[in-house]
Amino acid sequence: MESSSHAADSPAGRYPAAHLRGFAAEVFARCGVPEGDARQAADVLCTADEWGISSHGVARLKAYYEMLALGRINARASVRVVRETPSVALVDGDNGLGLVVGARANLLAIEKAQETGTAWVGVRHSNHFGIAGYYAVQGVPRDMICWAMTNTPALVSPLWGVGRVLGTNPLSVAIPAHREPPVVVDMATSAVSFGVAENAARRGEQLPTGCIADASGNQSTEPADLFAGGSLLPLGGDRQHGGHKGYCLAALIDLLCGVLSGANWGPFIPPFPHALGAPRPQVGLGLGHLFGAFSIGAFTESEEFKKGVDDWVELLRSTAPAPGTDGVQIPGDPERRAASESAARGVFLLPSVVEELEDVARRLGITFENF
Amino acid sequence: MESSSHAADSPAGRYPAAHLRGFAAEVFARCGVPEGDARQAADVLCTADEWGISSHGVARLKAYYEMLALGRINARASVRVVRETPSVALVDGDNGLGLVVGARANLLAIEKAQETGTAWVGVRHSNHFGIAGYYAVQGVPRDMICWAMTNTPALVSPLWGVGRVLGTNPLSVAIPAHREPPVVVDMATSAVSFGVAENAARRGEQLPTGCIADASGNQSTEPADLFAGGSLLPLGGDRQHGGHKGYCLAALIDLLCGVLSGANWGPFIPPFPHALGAPRPQVGLGLGHLFGAFSIGAFTESEEFKKGVDDWVELLRSTAPAPGTDGVQIPGDPERRAASESAARGVFLLPSVVEELEDVARRLGITFENF
Repeated sequence: MESSSHAADSPAGRYPAAHLRGFAAEVFARCGVPEGDARQAADVLCTADEWGISSHGVARLKAYYEMLALGRINARASVRVVRETPSVALVDGDNGLGLVVGARANLLAIEKAQETGTAWVGVRHSNHFGIAGYYAVQGVPRDMICWAMTNTPALVSPLWGVGRVLGTNPLSVAIPAHREPPVVVDMATSAVSFGVAENAARRGEQLPTGCIADASGNQSTEPADLFAGGSLLPLGGDRQHGGHKGYCLAALIDLLCGVLSGANWGPFIPPFPHALGAPRPQVGLGLGHLFGAFSIGAFTESEEFKKGVDDWVELLRSTAPAPGTDGVQIPGDPERRAASESAARGVFLLPSVVEELEDVARRLGITFENF
Repeated sequence: MESSSHAADSPAGRYPAAHLRGFAAEVFARCGVPEGDARQAADVLCTADEWGISSHGVARLKAYYEMLALGRINARASVRVVRETPSVALVDGDNGLGLVVGARANLLAIEKAQETGTAWVGVRHSNHFGIAGYYAVQGVPRDMICWAMTNTPALVSPLWGVGRVLGTNPLSVAIPAHREPPVVVDMATSAVSFGVAENAARRGEQLPTGCIADASGNQSTEPADLFAGGSLLPLGGDRQHGGHKGYCLAALIDLLCGVLSGANWGPFIPPFPHALGAPRPQVGLGLGHLFGAFSIGAFTESEEFKKGVDDWVELLRSTAPAPGTDGVQIPGDPERRAASESAARGVFLLPSVVEELEDVARRLGITFENF
């Protein structure tokens, strides 16, 4: 349930998703990524844009381009299974694009769950995989409940600690329904994202209490304190509001994605896109993900389950709206609204993002507008 | 990471855990629960007391006794697997004690994961299973990472909705280490528990903002508003602080434990201990749980993993303490501290709880002090 707001929402800044997909795939391909992988990577980024999660969309293409160009990401990675049982696998991403490694590992979890009922696949030596929700929804047409999680570079302080120790470590799970669209949980485990603080700073606004700390570990509402070495707070904020719970979730995902797979964890995760800077000490390989799949038919009758999800959704939608709100949303609604708007009007890109894409295009000898 | 505070901490109110275990097992047995099941049920309750989670300990024994005496819980339930694949099972608890049904289903997940690498077991037609952490830690000596979740009677409003629609739906995951004790995440998905509001009311204190709403759906800090038909808020509180994330977690656990297993969900879950009142409409059987087990050896070398968890724990412990705090704790630390104190000094029981236990004993023709 991410949302985005566009400061300058002019039709001039809107592009059909197919245009962005074609361009991004060409950029990846020209960086040496095999054609199928290039299309896969482009699909993850452009799905984020369509869903309104522009922070994780083609706004990141330049960073991926630079990391590929510098050899920091392996364009022709050989993704392989290094350990396997009937319902578990460990995948080594060979330092490839997380957008490709993640998709492959997620599909492996789905295929293994089709055989045994459920399967979980850990991944090490990967890179940023984009939006977790992309992977979770792959199970929906297959009557699967899919889980996706990843650890990410440290930005969050643990409860009662100072500094950036854990990532925003997101979790996504998608649950198919029958008539209703799927329930799609897709959430970071920090109170707010770095992007929320950037937006507040741009508008000269303060943040709510309980969202960030300054470099000394004091709670702050001033976005500049975050940029000056401060940290995001875990979901819940302080102890009284359940900040220990957000910390527990971030810890859990770090241990499952990082330590269990043999990837880096906590402060050792390579920064992005700042990986262009000096490498830091490493305790594992790349960053890590964990994908899980439940075959619904292994638990119960799929149609019966999906109709039950319909009933659940309808009951939630029928809840009386809280004062001053438009009422209860179903997890996945904001992304669906954004996707409808993207389909009707194109994907909105900030002028600064378009400039970056044009710059990448120039360096590769192609033209952004031609796709 | 629950904590408890004891108003009157006199040695007179302290009992050896073995005493409570023996008494609770005798109560269950005298209600017709088979001897092994009675000991199992007593173990879950008394472990909660030892861990300092007194709200889920023998303070609930009288409610279980009454529900068993009235036949609302089936003392001699025949727990059975109704659907099964190599890595999945669906268990019907036959309206038995959740403390027994949960333990059996959890063990089934562990046994199946030993065979295939991971396994998940859904449970329907169960009742309250006590603390989720009890089940998760069963995997630790077996080199397993175990998950336990349950849905619970509705007390929490969804973000932007009015009223009690979802449970506090807890999640626990326990992760074994080598030299260090395990990392044990055990958390409800609401901002605070009902018990926090009860304690505040007892002391005449207000709650922090972002924890409860009144019956009209307005945020409140007055505990009485919760008791007068108000609701707990999901972890995060309002939208700005990430309340949509707590709502997503509660929704996810309700769908997985309730809809997937064929149990009740949301507002249809039978209340506890108020199940003594009139039954409400049902959409499934009892309440539901979900247990998962990862065999660490299926993903990686167990010893290597557990040493990695040690490193992770040590790094977190070495984080500089935030101003005004004692520094970072590891998930599971508060329960371990309480367990040490319980072992040294006995489990503290409130006088009102002791009175309840004595009352139950009288009705069964036994003596509380004799165990």
